Amino acid sequence: MTDRPETGARAEPDFDEEYADLGATTRNAMEIAETSMDIVREFVPDETLADRLRQKSVHSMGDIEFQHLLRFTGTGPDGDPDEDAPVRAGARAVLDAATVVTDITMVKAGITGRGHDCEVIKAIGRGTELAERTGMTRTAASMLELDGEGALDGSVVTVGNAPTAALALADCIEQGTRPAVVLAHPVGFVKAEESRARIREACEARGVPAITHVGRRGGSGLAAALTNELIHVATDVRTGELELPPGSGDDGGAA
Amino acid sequence: MTDRPETGARAEPDFDEEYADLGATTRNAMEIAETSMDIVREFVPDETLADRLRQKSVHSMGDIEFQHLLRFTGTGPDGDPDEDAPVRAGARAVLDAATVVTDITMVKAGITGRGHDCEVIKAIGRGTELAERTGMTRTAASMLELDGEGALDGSVVTVGNAPTAALALADCIEQGTRPAVVLAHPVGFVKAEESRARIREACEARGVPAITHVGRRGGSGLAAALTNELIHVATDVRTGELELPPGSGDDGGAA
Repeated sequence: MTDRPETGARAEPDFDEEYADLGATTRNAMEIAETSMDIVREFVPDETLADRLRQKSVHSMGDIEFQHLLRFTGTGPDGDPDEDAPVRAGARAVLDAATVVTDITMVKAGITGRGHDCEVIKAIGRGTELAERTGMTRTAASMLELDGEGALDGSVVTVGNAPTAALALADCIEQGTRPAVVLAHPVGFVKAEESRARIREACEARGVPAITHVGRRGGSGLAAALTNELIHVATDVRTGELELPPGSGDDGGAA
Repeated sequence: MTDRPETGARAEPDFDEEYADLGATTRNAMEIAETSMDIVREFVPDETLADRLRQKSVHSMGDIEFQHLLRFTGTGPDGDPDEDAPVRAGARAVLDAATVVTDITMVKAGITGRGHDCEVIKAIGRGTELAERTGMTRTAASMLELDGEGALDGSVVTVGNAPTAALALADCIEQGTRPAVVLAHPVGFVKAEESRARIREACEARGVPAITHVGRRGGSGLAAALTNELIHVATDVRTGELELPPGSGDDGGAA
């Protein structure tokens, strides 16, 4: 199969035939994705909404053990910790066509355009003047500028790359900003883990639902995948496959 | 520090002051990146060009052990395997302002716009008709369409997400296509690892330098980071910090 004569010709008909055959096993990306999720479900529980995000984390990281690194911050109607709370809050925000805010272009590029009416905006590119004047990172400045415009309140805020953006977001939340849900997944060796701990601390103190993880790994791919799963949960609610408990104030709201 | 009164006010002067202070330790993203690379260099060798890519993989994956998963395909002037060959080939292609081709938008979004004159294009979005007609994935079809246009020859081709794009690329190479260098880093449980093995096999057989990895992990962030490191190597050559051995045919070329 790999030993075809090297003709230099790239006649489309040959490719058609070859890929029509290959198609018998791979068929299309949807089937690959479904097969992949079937494999994931052999190793990750499939009971709760949080489990759906655990599955997605394993899928996007290509690592079965990553499921154990996710952390869910939020409370249920009874005020007790509830892992599903940030998933419900995120799905409700998507159904309400809330704004989705990402830190950088790469995360925005990874968020599906289908299944929602949310505007997806990126922070990066804003706050240039503030960054130059103060020496803070561009991503931190961009997050503060968005906050000043009120763009973070009620939004799905996803930080996939920049620890300083997550640190700035934690400060905004402590100052009174109320995203619908926060996803924080910076990767790396400097301030990434610390920034996610700060997000958990600020979100728990102020009643903002959040999805984060522990450790040094993570990144834009994970952040986009988990945001997409909130969109998929919202789609399942919209199509009647899934029902969320009524009300949303019990999942967070101002402390 | 986290216990400031919740005033709801987000006066910029407060933030300025706070971040100017924070700036004393984090200063800016460049410093975070440098500190981070210093940590990485404690755990990854710093001897060869391939080591630079190992360092970058560790940095982008947030995992010190990832360095051992990279694979370098290529030969030196003596015809023996040479891990630095694909790095040299990639840097030379960047210096020649070769086209950089990515499979999906997210990888393209992660590639720096600085330090090179390369046009960066993405495959996805092309080949729609071919995909519909044959049932192959859109990313596979898009890669074949680019190949039909001759856009892969002499290019830096980076596949970060789609196994079927990597499989299609391997077929193109076996048909006679000659990228300057291939980076293949699909993530996941279905065909990702297989697609990278196929790239290694095709590239080794046809003398195309390649950077890949083993295992199920990987993804767009890794692919973009390694492509960016080729750009950084090229910059070091341009500024005289680094010298590449003359000639390039010895790093690959038609078998």
